[in-house]
Amino acid sequence: MAKELTKREDNYSQWYNDIVTKANLAENSAVRGCMVIKPYGYAIWERMQAALDKMFKDTGHENAYFPLFIPKSFFSKEAAHVEGFAKECAVVTHYRLKNDPNGKGIVVDEDAKLEEELIIRPTSETIIWDTYRNWIQSYRDLPLLINQWANVVRWEMRTRLFLRTAEFLWQEGHTAHATKQEALAEAEQMLYVYSDFAENWMAVPVLRGVKSPNERFAGAVETYCIEALMQDGKALQAGTSHFLGQNFAKAFDVKFLNRENKQDYVWATSWGVSTRLMGALVMAHSDDNGLVLPPKLAPVQVVIVPIYKNQEQLDAISEKVAEIKSLLEARNIRVKFDARDTHKPGFKFAEWEFKGVPVRLAIGPRDLEQETVEVARRDTLEKETLYIKNLDQKILNLLDQIQKNLYQKALDFRNLNTHKIDSWDDFLVQIEKGGFLLAHWDGTAETEQKIKEETKATIRLIPIEESPKEGKCIYSGEPSAQRVYFARAY
Amino acid sequence: MAKELTKREDNYSQWYNDIVTKANLAENSAVRGCMVIKPYGYAIWERMQAALDKMFKDTGHENAYFPLFIPKSFFSKEAAHVEGFAKECAVVTHYRLKNDPNGKGIVVDEDAKLEEELIIRPTSETIIWDTYRNWIQSYRDLPLLINQWANVVRWEMRTRLFLRTAEFLWQEGHTAHATKQEALAEAEQMLYVYSDFAENWMAVPVLRGVKSPNERFAGAVETYCIEALMQDGKALQAGTSHFLGQNFAKAFDVKFLNRENKQDYVWATSWGVSTRLMGALVMAHSDDNGLVLPPKLAPVQVVIVPIYKNQEQLDAISEKVAEIKSLLEARNIRVKFDARDTHKPGFKFAEWEFKGVPVRLAIGPRDLEQETVEVARRDTLEKETLYIKNLDQKILNLLDQIQKNLYQKALDFRNLNTHKIDSWDDFLVQIEKGGFLLAHWDGTAETEQKIKEETKATIRLIPIEESPKEGKCIYSGEPSAQRVYFARAY
Repeated sequence: MAKELTKREDNYSQWYNDIVTKANLAENSAVRGCMVIKPYGYAIWERMQAALDKMFKDTGHENAYFPLFIPKSFFSKEAAHVEGFAKECAVVTHYRLKNDPNGKGIVVDEDAKLEEELIIRPTSETIIWDTYRNWIQSYRDLPLLINQWANVVRWEMRTRLFLRTAEFLWQEGHTAHATKQEALAEAEQMLYVYSDFAENWMAVPVLRGVKSPNERFAGAVETYCIEALMQDGKALQAGTSHFLGQNFAKAFDVKFLNRENKQDYVWATSWGVSTRLMGALVMAHSDDNGLVLPPKLAPVQVVIVPIYKNQEQLDAISEKVAEIKSLLEARNIRVKFDARDTHKPGFKFAEWEFKGVPVRLAIGPRDLEQETVEVARRDTLEKETLYIKNLDQKILNLLDQIQKNLYQKALDFRNLNTHKIDSWDDFLVQIEKGGFLLAHWDGTAETEQKIKEETKATIRLIPIEESPKEGKCIYSGEPSAQRVYFARAY
Repeated sequence: MAKELTKREDNYSQWYNDIVTKANLAENSAVRGCMVIKPYGYAIWERMQAALDKMFKDTGHENAYFPLFIPKSFFSKEAAHVEGFAKECAVVTHYRLKNDPNGKGIVVDEDAKLEEELIIRPTSETIIWDTYRNWIQSYRDLPLLINQWANVVRWEMRTRLFLRTAEFLWQEGHTAHATKQEALAEAEQMLYVYSDFAENWMAVPVLRGVKSPNERFAGAVETYCIEALMQDGKALQAGTSHFLGQNFAKAFDVKFLNRENKQDYVWATSWGVSTRLMGALVMAHSDDNGLVLPPKLAPVQVVIVPIYKNQEQLDAISEKVAEIKSLLEARNIRVKFDARDTHKPGFKFAEWEFKGVPVRLAIGPRDLEQETVEVARRDTLEKETLYIKNLDQKILNLLDQIQKNLYQKALDFRNLNTHKIDSWDDFLVQIEKGGFLLAHWDGTAETEQKIKEETKATIRLIPIEESPKEGKCIYSGEPSAQRVYFARAY
């Protein structure tokens, strides 16, 4: 009855792929590395977008739209940025096709070669800061608090649905400020917006901190990030917020007249989350029965399945369901009545379970008599029979409970899989088991690199602590300012 | 005080460009033919998107996302489509850049040449129908009612902000059906969704009809369209809905098992509107004082400007404004209090007038005493003084009135500029004055082409009429089945 699903312990990676494709979230397309986001997956992404968009606007940001194309020369302007971004990307060289003179379909028209190649944006700092130059003259024009929802392309060689695709959807915030302090505060604020979203909407607990210089965004002075732990013990970077200093302002000559009537370069931040969050959502909560969705992001929160033997029974049930449905919808609960007569209840149960719908109601003739309904929750798979009276309030409470339970479960898992490590031997043993390893590091890129080479573990983040405790580096034995989080990561 | 704005009668085209750029709707970017949609312009587009998206969902459609790239060979599969679309487009030929060996920035890495070039989608029929092949097996999988919000690229040589740009934003619906009748009904339904949106949200009256074969979408069997009349007497195509027959199903081999248990090709529609609507919105209502926005799409519906001489007065006014603001906001009216102390009221009046805010409230010390407020409406530029009591209801009524007045004004203009023409001489005279010319046509592509060559007028649409009246072609004198709408167009 249920769709075939690989078990997590058998092959975690295949399990993930099965869920994404068989729950109709996404699939690979005819174009290498590019995915099709299917309606059910896109409906979840839309809910993510709506929640994030409101948070951005509540913190004073406005949306805008900048070109898909970036002139090649723009990338050379910021030294670190070009190293990080201008290499693996899609390059537009021509602007016309023509009929093949040999009659074989169409070919590129060599006469229509661009004077300067255009790059499909892998991120938009360059084109945006080139634009900001004309928008900013004095401190009165600042801050500029702008966000863009867009598609970007990074030519990845090994791709995985949602987690790493050549084209992906994201939002990128690009703000401009008169002072360093204000830009730093903005970058930190957005870090908290992201962690708030991850924890309160996705029910995914995240660690907050900064990246080591090695792992920083290309062109950033400081990269703030949130990191989540997946069920296979690997970490996943779920969002980043960058303090860019004056790097892009200098590269694109964006100066302003400050309050002291002097010319100064503008301070910048950028921050983004992407459809990668969809991958984190799937991996954080789902189980061997399929997708598990937090109620706040579930396109369908409650599915109602009728149990009947004949049309008369279905008619009576449908009447009651219409009542229940409008009761629940009046409380803004998203309800679907699955009245298909082509499938049996058992099939429907398995299907909606697989698709992660948080609450299932089943209603049969005996329920009608007794004014009850069978309620099953997706997170615990528990069932109970409830009176229909006040069902709206009961379901609201239940959805809230499921949301909190998913978060708590993920938090317990992370706590169980976070280890303070004080010796290199322990590190080597523990890293094979997965999870976050909280260990001392001497702060050098060399040590970081050696640990990565020997264990595939990277520094996921350096916690922001008021009074960090010193110690000795797990690898080199040299002095360490504080513990940092290591993990293998997606 | 006001921004410099060219008058319509002096140079309509420059007037349009002034409004778009000086009201901060959009501007040209560093990339040829690509625009930057600025926050104020994007906020209007977001409102359009939200209204349309709801209409699409209310008619049973779901959103999804398909790749930006289309393999070159896909275009050759549908004969008419390739002629119409595969020519002027952006072609990706490489996927990597490298450091210039001569040390001059970065260059395309010739080793990273794609085996098959990728085209940036100018429209997505091909990639979507290639995907649908795997989604559709039987009539039970139909209909597929899918929409996509996306960016597309058509390499236009002559571009104008919003009206014609190389990259633009749009939505494209792509539906699949089991029968011809159902697909036709879908294409017609979406035509009515579009005209409903144009008339009731944009306050732009539109004509509905079908295109002549010559003006059809490349690959369509029938193209339905809505056409609006701009203030300079030129027509603007505001949206199209295509009945595609089985053309794309045949090109991409999309068959299904029908109810009679036989294999058949799937029937298709596609339909879209774009950021071009922003151009129509600007040109339909704006005047020599700047932008005029219909209340339903205005990001700010009511702006409040305080009139004061000292801080004490401002404090007292601000207190009253806070009261008024929350009163209006409780009715979902979008209100902005312009309390900037860097600008005088006159400057603010001109600025908000230029930006098309439908209602302006001004409030000074005398208003405070008398519990009044001065209300100015953008559409008629009329002012009146109103008591603050029940102001929320009065403003709601006023916004409604402005919305209707803008529509009526545009409708009156169109009626005044629509002419039944019965002789070729009259046609030649009238086409110079602009407007819609309702005239008989013999139905041949030759006549259509000749009229276009001699007058630059095209057949904008053929009305769908229950009992069309016959006549004689304005140009050839041959029999004509019905009158059609001619105009010069954007």
